[in-house]
Amino acid sequence: MEVAQPVVGMVGGGQLARMTAQAAIDLGIEFRVLADTASDSAAQVCAHTQVGDYRAAKDVLAFGAGCDVITFDHEHVPGAHLTALEGLTAVRPGSHALRFAQDKAAMRDRLSALESAPALGVRCPRYQPVSDIGEVVKFAAVAESKGSVHGWPVVLKATSGGYDGRGVWICTDERAAAEVISHGIGLIAEEYVPFDRELAALVAMSPKGQGAAYPVVQTVQADGVCREVIAPAPGLDAKLAVRAQALALTLAAELGVTGLLAVELFAVGDELVINELAMRPHNCGHWTMDAAVTSQFEQHLRAVLDLPLGDPTANADTAVMVNVLGGDDPDLNSRLVHVMAADPGVKVHLYGKEVRQGRKVGHVTVAGEGVAELRDRAWRAANYLRHGTEDAEDGGLTAGPAAGTAAQGRGRQR
Amino acid sequence: MEVAQPVVGMVGGGQLARMTAQAAIDLGIEFRVLADTASDSAAQVCAHTQVGDYRAAKDVLAFGAGCDVITFDHEHVPGAHLTALEGLTAVRPGSHALRFAQDKAAMRDRLSALESAPALGVRCPRYQPVSDIGEVVKFAAVAESKGSVHGWPVVLKATSGGYDGRGVWICTDERAAAEVISHGIGLIAEEYVPFDRELAALVAMSPKGQGAAYPVVQTVQADGVCREVIAPAPGLDAKLAVRAQALALTLAAELGVTGLLAVELFAVGDELVINELAMRPHNCGHWTMDAAVTSQFEQHLRAVLDLPLGDPTANADTAVMVNVLGGDDPDLNSRLVHVMAADPGVKVHLYGKEVRQGRKVGHVTVAGEGVAELRDRAWRAANYLRHGTEDAEDGGLTAGPAAGTAAQGRGRQR
Repeated sequence: MEVAQPVVGMVGGGQLARMTAQAAIDLGIEFRVLADTASDSAAQVCAHTQVGDYRAAKDVLAFGAGCDVITFDHEHVPGAHLTALEGLTAVRPGSHALRFAQDKAAMRDRLSALESAPALGVRCPRYQPVSDIGEVVKFAAVAESKGSVHGWPVVLKATSGGYDGRGVWICTDERAAAEVISHGIGLIAEEYVPFDRELAALVAMSPKGQGAAYPVVQTVQADGVCREVIAPAPGLDAKLAVRAQALALTLAAELGVTGLLAVELFAVGDELVINELAMRPHNCGHWTMDAAVTSQFEQHLRAVLDLPLGDPTANADTAVMVNVLGGDDPDLNSRLVHVMAADPGVKVHLYGKEVRQGRKVGHVTVAGEGVAELRDRAWRAANYLRHGTEDAEDGGLTAGPAAGTAAQGRGRQR
Repeated sequence: MEVAQPVVGMVGGGQLARMTAQAAIDLGIEFRVLADTASDSAAQVCAHTQVGDYRAAKDVLAFGAGCDVITFDHEHVPGAHLTALEGLTAVRPGSHALRFAQDKAAMRDRLSALESAPALGVRCPRYQPVSDIGEVVKFAAVAESKGSVHGWPVVLKATSGGYDGRGVWICTDERAAAEVISHGIGLIAEEYVPFDRELAALVAMSPKGQGAAYPVVQTVQADGVCREVIAPAPGLDAKLAVRAQALALTLAAELGVTGLLAVELFAVGDELVINELAMRPHNCGHWTMDAAVTSQFEQHLRAVLDLPLGDPTANADTAVMVNVLGGDDPDLNSRLVHVMAADPGVKVHLYGKEVRQGRKVGHVTVAGEGVAELRDRAWRAANYLRHGTEDAEDGGLTAGPAAGTAAQGRGRQR
């Protein structure tokens, strides 16, 4: 007798869906993807791909109708479609939670309301919706008067989406801010936080309310793109780590998240400041594929299926993940051979994406002992895959940024 | 610019192809499967499934024409088709090597010729092709006179295939042997080896001749089905382990194997006796998915693509793998919930196969420290998935066989 497998559908065909497809194979569930095109990263490897437009209600609803649970590779599905989907099937995370990942103004409003909650123990940057340059200038002035380090730079963030593939701009002066304003998108202004380093807390929460927290990691961004993740964050005070984990679990419960929640944080002394939220597998958790008992992708599937969560413990002393960005030469495979020969222990994950300059096309993870050596190995592999040389070619970053480098780019990470 | 991905095709749509598909996703290669039906284990999850008959030359050749490399989930493709395939594309392992995995008489002849090679350092069981019961009786008598422990039981093995899903019979007397003979299949008689325990050595070899050896494991079979694998084999003398690894690497080179070679061994005191060979991912290596730097599935892909091999080192002190067999209730998913709740650290791998009594439908792996505790956890999970209870229901085996239990079943393991 055949017994029906649970069917999980993921909207979006990017690398997060691709790696979730990989995890789904172990659980004996049917995993479907709604992809923009048949050549999308996940569509290349997933047996159940439906090509369609996540912005079209009919495509989203047709996809959802065949699935027991719908979840997401990105946060761009229009809210109205989400609500309609919820009339059909289980949507996890639900529209009420996703709203806070979709709309940064709503997220900031909600988090600020929570700020005084004792369990949270973190602060949010000062922020304000802005629609013209006068409001930005005024925000900078207020920030200055309230004792921020300086009024400028001011961080402008698209409340949703953005342009030219970016949603975050660090504006050093009025002229730069005016340029962003000129695009006519919804924006919030945020105070620039001069952080010591960036951290991320990744947790899962199931509909039953079971939670699981991964070790807190250190991340490095450059030009709005995540470059490196070290798990656990080197030298992180144990109390601060627990505070970050508790914060993420509290947020997941308060916002009603089911599935994964990634909380990107700025560490400033022993203070934690919330930067961004994402309610899906996240770049800060890619290391879990190779160095945690349960990968974030399996964990997300368990959570959205309301299965008991897996052990989030690391099974290596330290893991270093470095993203592989596209370089000038599209032929990754010819360089992969050399990376494999140079270091048989490096774990390479390629996304099947066309190589374009600066685009994330894969990641590498090295796990073991000794942060410096692991970083060196991971960066060598990632640099070689990008450039065909192990040397630094990214303004020092690719030689391996020092732990705590205050990279200036901040954006929403996949 | 798009750059073509290498295309690997695997003949056979079983769980080995399913897990190879999972590994292929990381390497950014295109992985195709030739499956008997669209509901085969691998066909359920692989984006590039072709349904066809591996016994039909036209199906095999049509499949091979689109692939850069052809490899195998099983050893049943007729030799003539393999030779024809070799005219089209790279076939790894090649027909000259696969012959020894397909035909046990050829394998025994070849191994016996190698037996005196100093590097081999093992012996093969006495054997003889038999076609009637008289020859079996004579073989038993010769074995007795040559100082074997006893003439009976005699092991009869189908030279290829078998019947009723079996290919190995341990015949305690003439009457049992006559029953096997009556089926009219090609057979060899082998001396019964009263082993202390069974071991397996798994190695990879690339066309360039690079080799990599996994830690030697202990396996337990019952009724011809692999039940448990412990990596590394508990208490195995380091010299004996190295001898087993060297033996497998030597065999891979001597037989011209590309890809994986699994050598199943009997340990008798400090002597190693070769039981079976397989030239593909193998049940004895499933633990590598969760507890080795490079899984056997990735390793097989690297080897057949002539890429540098990955690090075969274990990344846990010990790993215990137990196969999940089908029980009376087909609804695995309802029991999976309880297994996940009871032990968040157990890694469950389900094959999407219809549940039938005694059929391999998945496996579980637990990694960490302490063999006894790990075995207990793995068997509890596997028993629950089969029976809905953690109690032993398999004649003591499922309570966890003692290390070294001389289980009587021996067969070809997937």
